[in-house]
Amino acid sequence: MNIMDIKELSLQIEEEIKQFSRTCIIRPSLATIDVGNDPVNKKFVKAIESACNRVGIYFRYHDFEEDTPELTIINKIKELNNDDYVNGVMINLPLPIKYNEKRLLNTIINSKDIDGLTDINIGRLISGRKTIIPCAAQGIMELFKYYNIQLESKEIVIVGNSKLITRPLMNILLKEGATVTVCNSKTIDLKKHTIESDIIISAVGEKNLITDDMVREDAIVIDAGISIEDDKIYGDVDFDKVSKKVSLITPIGGVGMMTVAMALRNTIFCYNNKK
Amino acid sequence: MNIMDIKELSLQIEEEIKQFSRTCIIRPSLATIDVGNDPVNKKFVKAIESACNRVGIYFRYHDFEEDTPELTIINKIKELNNDDYVNGVMINLPLPIKYNEKRLLNTIINSKDIDGLTDINIGRLISGRKTIIPCAAQGIMELFKYYNIQLESKEIVIVGNSKLITRPLMNILLKEGATVTVCNSKTIDLKKHTIESDIIISAVGEKNLITDDMVREDAIVIDAGISIEDDKIYGDVDFDKVSKKVSLITPIGGVGMMTVAMALRNTIFCYNNKK
Repeated sequence: MNIMDIKELSLQIEEEIKQFSRTCIIRPSLATIDVGNDPVNKKFVKAIESACNRVGIYFRYHDFEEDTPELTIINKIKELNNDDYVNGVMINLPLPIKYNEKRLLNTIINSKDIDGLTDINIGRLISGRKTIIPCAAQGIMELFKYYNIQLESKEIVIVGNSKLITRPLMNILLKEGATVTVCNSKTIDLKKHTIESDIIISAVGEKNLITDDMVREDAIVIDAGISIEDDKIYGDVDFDKVSKKVSLITPIGGVGMMTVAMALRNTIFCYNNKK
Repeated sequence: MNIMDIKELSLQIEEEIKQFSRTCIIRPSLATIDVGNDPVNKKFVKAIESACNRVGIYFRYHDFEEDTPELTIINKIKELNNDDYVNGVMINLPLPIKYNEKRLLNTIINSKDIDGLTDINIGRLISGRKTIIPCAAQGIMELFKYYNIQLESKEIVIVGNSKLITRPLMNILLKEGATVTVCNSKTIDLKKHTIESDIIISAVGEKNLITDDMVREDAIVIDAGISIEDDKIYGDVDFDKVSKKVSLITPIGGVGMMTVAMALRNTIFCYNNKK
């Protein structure tokens, strides 16, 4: 079977976390900040909430209308920073464009930064220090580990230059000794890169961007893109055709499941490392 | 002429800085921490010192024996952090391996971090905030600007995975819309990547790593590698042969000259931004 069994892996991870949280008198707690009505974000919040409920993490949902003043959100983040019963804070990205995303992210105290996206946590990651690893990137690395995929000397292409996935992931992959290429919407010949790669990671959010003529039969394909059309979730990869060709591929929504699992794991990490 | 005239460019930059420092009652000042006897480092310090003298930046050289306790160096950095007459602090890298490089780098206060290598300054760079850009990476970007080299949609390969050059540079290049590949010593077929690239940046420190059969005739070659053999400086590129083939190339030691010029410029940046 060449489709990764991410359900099985995330169940295993949830089981570990469940075992741990049973031992806690004060429950680990994750707070989510959600602004506006992005449909992908809403689905993600639902998934996080269900997962928290399954594993015994106390979930706090802070939902703001799209016209909320930035200061109101900043004050909420500061309140969560100071609340001893909150271990992790995550902001659902992207925020509506009128908000200063970097300012809001950097309001989160480093030790509760579940997504690992404050400037200092990113800097720590790049310079190789122990830190919180952004959930999606960590989830993808977990897949490589679970499927025993060696990364050293592998040719890896990341499609899309996202801060959330690409930036942290490429740094981790380089550290593992992989040869990493990052393509973007300005890349003239995307296929030239994908067809020569051992591993293709796509994180764009564009349906059918990666088609079966763009991949080798021995390729491993990680689809981290998400788009929604008529209430249906799509990845970046033309799954029906590509999955028939390649050696290993993530199912649609699979990387999202791993991202959720890593948000739970990072919550426990913060719980155990709280000052 | 296909060899970049870096002497001319760095003279222009020095002239700007000279004009500025003439206007200062309290002179801008740069402090360098040098530990041990690395020959490349010693040459670099000499170059920085001469340049500071030419442009009117007060140069302070703090030289430590290889057996100096780490705490002694940390205390010196803290002293420089607190000294109002010091605008920039740089540690010559690499340090002898027994030192905790990250700890020492992160002791430098962010506002005097000439090399832009504290965790928070790296994080700011990656997330696209205004910050101090590491000197070598900034110097290379300056060359692209001076020679009007468009980066969007260009295929760029960086050879070597150095924290000092590769990590900051790839992030800047990605932001410019380039397609960037990072190769390292584990890359199986380096030539495959270099031969397909519009721009080749090598930052390894290995003589004759890039030979003329590895580059296209229309390529631009930036040699940021340095090694010393019998007191003679070599780059990564087999200059004599490669320079006869490609469309534009840096002279041996050219990127080093730009790095020095950018250290001066960053000193002025810190001088103007001091709290």
